[in-house]
Amino acid sequence: MVALGGGHGLYASLSALRTLDIDITAVVTVADDGGSSGRIRRELGVLPPGDLRMALAALASSTLGPGGGGPSWRDVLQHRLGGTGALAGHPIGNLLLTGLMELHADPVTALADVARVVGADGRVLPMAATPLDLIAEVASVDPDDPVRHRQIRGQSAIAATAGRVTSIRLVPADPAACPEAVAAIEDADAVLLGPGSWFTSVIPHLLVPGLAKALNRTSGRRVVILNLEQQAGETEGFSPEQHLGALREACPELAMDVVVADVDAVLDEAALRRYADELGAQLLLAPIAAPGATARHDPGKLSQVIAEAIGLPAADARPDAEHVDTGLRPGMEQGVR
Amino acid sequence: MVALGGGHGLYASLSALRTLDIDITAVVTVADDGGSSGRIRRELGVLPPGDLRMALAALASSTLGPGGGGPSWRDVLQHRLGGTGALAGHPIGNLLLTGLMELHADPVTALADVARVVGADGRVLPMAATPLDLIAEVASVDPDDPVRHRQIRGQSAIAATAGRVTSIRLVPADPAACPEAVAAIEDADAVLLGPGSWFTSVIPHLLVPGLAKALNRTSGRRVVILNLEQQAGETEGFSPEQHLGALREACPELAMDVVVADVDAVLDEAALRRYADELGAQLLLAPIAAPGATARHDPGKLSQVIAEAIGLPAADARPDAEHVDTGLRPGMEQGVR
Repeated sequence: MVALGGGHGLYASLSALRTLDIDITAVVTVADDGGSSGRIRRELGVLPPGDLRMALAALASSTLGPGGGGPSWRDVLQHRLGGTGALAGHPIGNLLLTGLMELHADPVTALADVARVVGADGRVLPMAATPLDLIAEVASVDPDDPVRHRQIRGQSAIAATAGRVTSIRLVPADPAACPEAVAAIEDADAVLLGPGSWFTSVIPHLLVPGLAKALNRTSGRRVVILNLEQQAGETEGFSPEQHLGALREACPELAMDVVVADVDAVLDEAALRRYADELGAQLLLAPIAAPGATARHDPGKLSQVIAEAIGLPAADARPDAEHVDTGLRPGMEQGVR
Repeated sequence: MVALGGGHGLYASLSALRTLDIDITAVVTVADDGGSSGRIRRELGVLPPGDLRMALAALASSTLGPGGGGPSWRDVLQHRLGGTGALAGHPIGNLLLTGLMELHADPVTALADVARVVGADGRVLPMAATPLDLIAEVASVDPDDPVRHRQIRGQSAIAATAGRVTSIRLVPADPAACPEAVAAIEDADAVLLGPGSWFTSVIPHLLVPGLAKALNRTSGRRVVILNLEQQAGETEGFSPEQHLGALREACPELAMDVVVADVDAVLDEAALRRYADELGAQLLLAPIAAPGATARHDPGKLSQVIAEAIGLPAADARPDAEHVDTGLRPGMEQGVR
């Protein structure tokens, strides 16, 4: 199973996938230019490490001590240095990964080293071997704003801008895909796109020509998982079907096999099914939100619905995975509407 | 065996000790205020990590990959970030250790975690649990300098000042020793002091009352290893016997069992033996310098002479230790003059 994404969305899907008995490869965006990652890529010229670190943290299983003692590598990777100086806010995992990318030159080898150290249940690959930038066309959502459209450059600026992204592109426009990521997608039994920040973590993969080609060529089952809600500044006012529309605009030849959406997030099921049809995909509605006011995916429910979407027999679920009642009727045929 | 010191001197003695089949505990200075360590202690208030990191690197045995593959943890700990920005020059090991000191609050636990991760052949302890400062009285060595004596504060300033240190003290003056370090010295079969920067890496241990008391109370064999040569800015014009004199000035009640010096570094053997006698110590002269123009200790020769000094039978030397002809006559009785 290959999971495409970045940030918190990919963290959620990887947390779900690792409860299943499958080989996992994460293919991660490398366009972040904010916070610790932005400072590191500007100072050192390496890949922005933040999304890669989060994927490693999601998959990490080891502790620093023997026999499960000491802090978990996940906590160490995610720990941000304190103080008010030049180091403040840098996660330890970003700094460790940066040092290894300097030592190795090849980021894939550096990621493999850190993955081994933290006992990652899977591989983490960058979508490209060089840092990328994003440029978004953003429509104003303020009726009094005389400027109706703006071009915004940089992932952190895009995330901070009020408005709705209407399109996004990469700079450089035609980046070389990471060869190991292309091979992983082509050989995969299943490829997962989303959830996550739609324009800055999910769509960028479709803008790397090598990855888009691999995605359309693979014989693996292609599954897109929609977000639970719209995201201020990125997808303000977006319905689930508009999320699918944005994928097709970024990659008109895109074909998918299954569209997964939270049953409570869908208002117009017929419209969403039409959009899914255009991608060649079945629609799978299920309750995948975690309880509570904040919209986030429940890892247990998400892993169940992913297992269904890729046709994984229940016996392949790891025996140590928590049992979660998804509320789904048994069997994928019934689950997919 | 407990080794007291800091910086490159301690790195040399630990590199020598790990070729012997003995349990090693390093007790490390925490007064550095320069470079990466200085930036980190000022920004984050934790112990300066540099000397601790170097000791861990000297003892590290693991690689990041399985079965000896991938880079060595020593190389990763020692790798300094590049670029020209806020991160430039920070060794990865300093940042990892800093993160763990923040996570744990207790630096001894943080050091134990990193030691386990890098497969350290021994323990590394700080001499005190809080950062310390050094103040030196420095005599001018420039005959035209109208100011004959200056007070210089801070280890990095002391190291950079032209002149000869006449005395040194700690701020605060009466720091609490790390309890684990006190226990290690009291329980040791042997305690090693030096080699290293005499006033900034070796003598500071004698200025921590708890450590000085433990050193005088231990039934273990106390061995001091003299430097190969004087050090500009610290011990300019110092003879080997003046190095011993400086120890007694810092700690008048100091007692030692063996003084080790390089046979070629001693000009006045009779004077050095007199100073050793005053400490209650035998004098052991041996060739311990590495070949070449730069004065540094040969780890193989150093481990042989340490084994002699502590009365370790040759059979206890690790079978994988390199055989080095020290030029010593067989038997400690003959080696100690």
